Amino acid sequence: MNTIEQLQLLAIEIIEKENFNYEPKSLFLPIEYAMHQGGKRVRPFLVLLSCDCFSKDVSLAKYSAIAIEILHNFTLLHDDIMDNSPLRRGKETVYKKYSINSAILSGDAMFALAINKVMETPKKEITPFLAQEICLASIEICKGQALDMSFEERDDVEIEEYIDMVRLKTSVLLGCALKLGAICAKASKEEQEIIYSFGEKLGIAFQIQDDILDCWSNVSTFGKIVGRDILDKKKTFLYLKALSLLKDEKKENFKQLYNSSFENNEEKIFKVKQIYEELNIRDIAFNESLSYTNEAMEMVKRLSIDESKAENLITFANILLGREK
Amino acid sequence: MNTIEQLQLLAIEIIEKENFNYEPKSLFLPIEYAMHQGGKRVRPFLVLLSCDCFSKDVSLAKYSAIAIEILHNFTLLHDDIMDNSPLRRGKETVYKKYSINSAILSGDAMFALAINKVMETPKKEITPFLAQEICLASIEICKGQALDMSFEERDDVEIEEYIDMVRLKTSVLLGCALKLGAICAKASKEEQEIIYSFGEKLGIAFQIQDDILDCWSNVSTFGKIVGRDILDKKKTFLYLKALSLLKDEKKENFKQLYNSSFENNEEKIFKVKQIYEELNIRDIAFNESLSYTNEAMEMVKRLSIDESKAENLITFANILLGREK
Repeated sequence: MNTIEQLQLLAIEIIEKENFNYEPKSLFLPIEYAMHQGGKRVRPFLVLLSCDCFSKDVSLAKYSAIAIEILHNFTLLHDDIMDNSPLRRGKETVYKKYSINSAILSGDAMFALAINKVMETPKKEITPFLAQEICLASIEICKGQALDMSFEERDDVEIEEYIDMVRLKTSVLLGCALKLGAICAKASKEEQEIIYSFGEKLGIAFQIQDDILDCWSNVSTFGKIVGRDILDKKKTFLYLKALSLLKDEKKENFKQLYNSSFENNEEKIFKVKQIYEELNIRDIAFNESLSYTNEAMEMVKRLSIDESKAENLITFANILLGREK
Repeated sequence: MNTIEQLQLLAIEIIEKENFNYEPKSLFLPIEYAMHQGGKRVRPFLVLLSCDCFSKDVSLAKYSAIAIEILHNFTLLHDDIMDNSPLRRGKETVYKKYSINSAILSGDAMFALAINKVMETPKKEITPFLAQEICLASIEICKGQALDMSFEERDDVEIEEYIDMVRLKTSVLLGCALKLGAICAKASKEEQEIIYSFGEKLGIAFQIQDDILDCWSNVSTFGKIVGRDILDKKKTFLYLKALSLLKDEKKENFKQLYNSSFENNEEKIFKVKQIYEELNIRDIAFNESLSYTNEAMEMVKRLSIDESKAENLITFANILLGREK
């Protein structure tokens, strides 16, 4: 029986050991740089965690664990170009360190490497399912990014659309990681879907919580600047919820406030948060997040797995949602 | 028995019929635009042609034919960004018509759609081989593009490196198309490799000939501006061969001539071609191209297929190399 800590260490080890030092250097150095920046390797860990739920041996899931991390980093390479993000985890993003062209091309190669990696899984009969899962997830992630970019230019985004964007852009990959692990463990189709759904619901809960933390946490524990989303005029759950509760003039005023730039950043954050607090947005968002968490927990109950394995899933959920270290 | 014309029409029809009209529009409109611009559909045709060599029924190859055309167009979307190309076949490239971000993201989705398409092939047991082939080809194409970009900044490119770049960037996809068709027809591994090699050799012959045509053809038959490569200071076979034949001062003078910009385009083209002609570069390049063509033709002889099928392959080679309409 593997503990969560063992699986976490294994996930980190698997990625660190993977070699990307190939020729030509101009193609593979950016890949090496992107892949070996450390990190918790949540997605590879999820592949192993899920495989461990249904099977004693997680070794078959190794290939999918590597593949999902390559795939995740490929999306980051391209997203950082599209979002103009110069930094990631305090270090230069690939397009900043190398060039936009390098980030495009190395990203493309990573996508191919990811699929290629799952195809290396020694049980050939499951590889079509693994590859198809990764492709479907990739298309969903592209849809999510397309929606996210289109939201920037729209001022009529509905909460349902926001949730759907989050589901596509973030949750699908968590669900996919869990499903890959389940496929490697030869879990039934039904169990594959349930554990996918567990990840999907959890991802949405996590994103809403991330929106809350961006607004109401202290820098030292959150690790990002508080109020960043407000300064970036990001259409978060909080903003969209506030808009949906306001009417007429108040709604227009809030829209104007949120979409204007202040000389004093603190002043803008204070004013927006004042309205959030008047409308009780923090509690509403917390309850929304909790409702998705509960849906995720329901999924765990529906799985026919050992109690200790179910507990692992629940412990992970609590870690992800910051309820436990 | 299918004639070349029938297979060509089938390839065009298959791509035209394929639907890309999905949501969100911001993701799929650029894909639809890229995929439905007409064209000869050489790569899908090669999939069908190859399948037809080894099997009476080409219907199983349909999915690979669509996949390879999506894959090819995905590489064009990203290459056009990297190469700053505003036009393709006289029409705006995707990044020009939409945006760089759209071209990156829609390209990514196309890659996933391509793999997904081969996975739809009804004979599930061959899908891992098809997917792996596409991934390996994609990695090779990325390597080729990386080399091509690095050549721009180097002034010590060897002819062998140029040939290898051409092989990776252009030939591999022709070889891959033929191999996919052979896999669909359940040809032996050996035959798969031979027909791949046929495409690979032919692709190199074609590219060298394209370098010649860029320099010595008339606009009306070639369809591009004559001397474009010279004006763009492109490191073609002709340029690299000329360099390798020149020594000392003459070599330096030629390098300088080629890499300088003239007020009068015609003057630069004239001067460069004068040196090419002194060195007999046209004949040397023609013979090099011919030698790859002959190697390709040798491959056809090694295949155990009907004579009429072998003739189809040879006819295609002659069409590609412009020896036949």
